[in-house]
Amino acid sequence: MTFEFTPLGVGAAIPIAGRHTSAHILNIQDQIYLIDCGEGTQMRLEQLQFRRSRIKQIFISHLHGDHVLGLIGLVTSFSLLGRDIPLSIFGPTGIKDFIEANIKYTHSHIPYELNIHELDPTVHIHIFENQNIDVYTIPLQHRVPTCGYLFREKQRLPRINIQKIEDYNVPKTAIRGIKMEGDDFTTEEGKLILNSELTLPAYPTRAFAYCSDTAYSEAIVPIIKEVDLLYHEATYLNRHQKQAEFSMHSTAQDAATIAKSADVKRLLLGHYSSRYLHVDLLRDEAQYIFPNTDLAIEGDVYKVPLEKNPQA
Amino acid sequence: MTFEFTPLGVGAAIPIAGRHTSAHILNIQDQIYLIDCGEGTQMRLEQLQFRRSRIKQIFISHLHGDHVLGLIGLVTSFSLLGRDIPLSIFGPTGIKDFIEANIKYTHSHIPYELNIHELDPTVHIHIFENQNIDVYTIPLQHRVPTCGYLFREKQRLPRINIQKIEDYNVPKTAIRGIKMEGDDFTTEEGKLILNSELTLPAYPTRAFAYCSDTAYSEAIVPIIKEVDLLYHEATYLNRHQKQAEFSMHSTAQDAATIAKSADVKRLLLGHYSSRYLHVDLLRDEAQYIFPNTDLAIEGDVYKVPLEKNPQA
Repeated sequence: MTFEFTPLGVGAAIPIAGRHTSAHILNIQDQIYLIDCGEGTQMRLEQLQFRRSRIKQIFISHLHGDHVLGLIGLVTSFSLLGRDIPLSIFGPTGIKDFIEANIKYTHSHIPYELNIHELDPTVHIHIFENQNIDVYTIPLQHRVPTCGYLFREKQRLPRINIQKIEDYNVPKTAIRGIKMEGDDFTTEEGKLILNSELTLPAYPTRAFAYCSDTAYSEAIVPIIKEVDLLYHEATYLNRHQKQAEFSMHSTAQDAATIAKSADVKRLLLGHYSSRYLHVDLLRDEAQYIFPNTDLAIEGDVYKVPLEKNPQA
Repeated sequence: MTFEFTPLGVGAAIPIAGRHTSAHILNIQDQIYLIDCGEGTQMRLEQLQFRRSRIKQIFISHLHGDHVLGLIGLVTSFSLLGRDIPLSIFGPTGIKDFIEANIKYTHSHIPYELNIHELDPTVHIHIFENQNIDVYTIPLQHRVPTCGYLFREKQRLPRINIQKIEDYNVPKTAIRGIKMEGDDFTTEEGKLILNSELTLPAYPTRAFAYCSDTAYSEAIVPIIKEVDLLYHEATYLNRHQKQAEFSMHSTAQDAATIAKSADVKRLLLGHYSSRYLHVDLLRDEAQYIFPNTDLAIEGDVYKVPLEKNPQA
C-alpha cells in the first residue's frame, strides 16, 4: 500500500550545482506519476533508478521552462526506447502546442498513443481516475496559467474481520462477496449475520497536494483541507517578500500559513531560489507557524503512512 | 595561445548513466564556443566549471533532440542571470522557429540581443569571424538538414627576431611597426634592414573540424583536409553497419577512413550508441585504419598544440 513522494529537483528557475529544476515522482500503490518535468528529468529518473517506462501519466503545473523543458526529451526518448503503451500528459492551455510543435521541430516520430489533456487552470475539477486514485486540479496564482494537483486515494473496501469469520465458520468462497459486494452471511444453523459484523471499517484514504508555483492564495485552502502531505513551493525567505509578491511566488511562511489554515498533516517545502545556498532558514521560518514542516531534499522519499487503527 | 576541445556529452540519442547527449566546448585563444546543446548542457557547463556567460556563439549541427534540447534552458537562464551582451546562434533552417516558438511557449523574455543565423547546410560557406578565427559550415549527410563546422585560426603576425633586434639596436618604439605593418628598419649608420631579417615566420594556424551527425561522406574530405583535430561521430561498430546506413550514422571505421583520406593530424571519436556500455572496441576498429585515434571522454580536455618550430 505504497504512498510516497520523491522530489527529483527542488530548485527554482535556474539550476545550480546539486539542485535541479522541478520534477517529482509520486508512487501510489506502485503506480508512478510524474509531476512537472524540468530539464534533465529523464537523466534524474535514471540516476535515481526509476524505470522511465513505468510512467503512464505526467502532470505539468505550468509552462515555465524550469517545469517543462525536460518533457520533449522524455517523450522522444520513450519513442527511441520502443514504448508501445499510451502516455497521458495533463497541463494548462498551451501544452498541446508546445509538445506538438517541438515534436515537429525536432523531426521526431511518436509511435505510441500520446494523449495530451489541456486543462483550464482557473477551476478545481476532476481530471483523472484509475482503480486507485482520483486527481483534481488546484487553481494557483502565478504569472502564467498554472494549476496544482490533488491526488486522493479512492474509497477502499471494508476489511474482513478474521475473528468473526472463524467464529461463524464462514467458508472461503463466501468471503469475496462479503468484502466486495457487502453480502450478509447465513450460518449452517440458519442464523443471519449482517455484513457490518463480519467486516471492519476500511482504512482511510490518503491524499497529497502539489502546489507550485504560486503566490499566497487562501482560495486553495478548502481544496487541500486535511491532506496527509502538502508540497508547497517556498521560493523565498521573509526578507525577500517583496520579490515573492512581484514574481508571484511564496515565502516559506506563506506556505506554512496555508498548511496551518488547511490543517494538513505534514508540509514539505521546495522550489528554493538559487540565491540561497543553504535552505535551513526556509524551514525555520515555516516551522514557526507550522511545526510539522520539512525541506524537500532531492532523491529522498517522503512516505505517507496508512492509518492502521482508525477510530471510524 | 589556448586551443582545446572539451566534450560535455559523448552519447547518442538516448542519455544513459554517465553519458550525456551532445554538447562541446571549443576554447580558442580564451574565447569559448559551444558546439551543439543537448538536454542538460547548462548543468554540464556548471559541473565542469565553465562560466556560461563567457559563451557568445553557439553552433548547432541539426535539430535532433540530442543536439538541441538544452538550448532553450540555456538561452532563458541567460535572461534570468541578467545577461546583457549579445548571443549568436548558428544552425540549419528551422532553428529560428524552434527558438522563437519555445520562447513564446515558455512565456520567456529575452532582454539581451539574440541573433539567430539560419544556415543552408548543403553548402560549404564562411559564416563567422572575429579577430582570432574563421568558421565555415561542413555539409553533412543525415536524415535531417545537418552541418558540421570548421574552425580555423586566422593568419598570425610574424614573430619578432629578438636576436636581430638586439644586433641592430632597434628601439622599442619601432617594434610595433615591424611586427604589425611589415616595416623595414634603418640603423643609425644608415643601413637598411629588411623586415624579413627582423622577423621569423608566424606560427602556423590551427584548425578543428566537428562532424556530427553524418553518414560516411567523402564529400567532406577536401573541406577538412589536414586539420589538426577532427571530431567525427562514430555511433556504431562494424557489426552494426546496416543500422548505421539505415539511420545515416557512421561507424568508427567510417570516421577513420575519412580521417585518413583527409590526412588529419588526430581523430577523436564520439556520439556512441547507448547499446555499447564499453566503447574501447570503437577505438580499436578505428585505429586499425587511422592509428592516431582517441575516444572522446566527457570532461577531458583535448589540446591542439602550437607548432613552435615550423619549417616555413
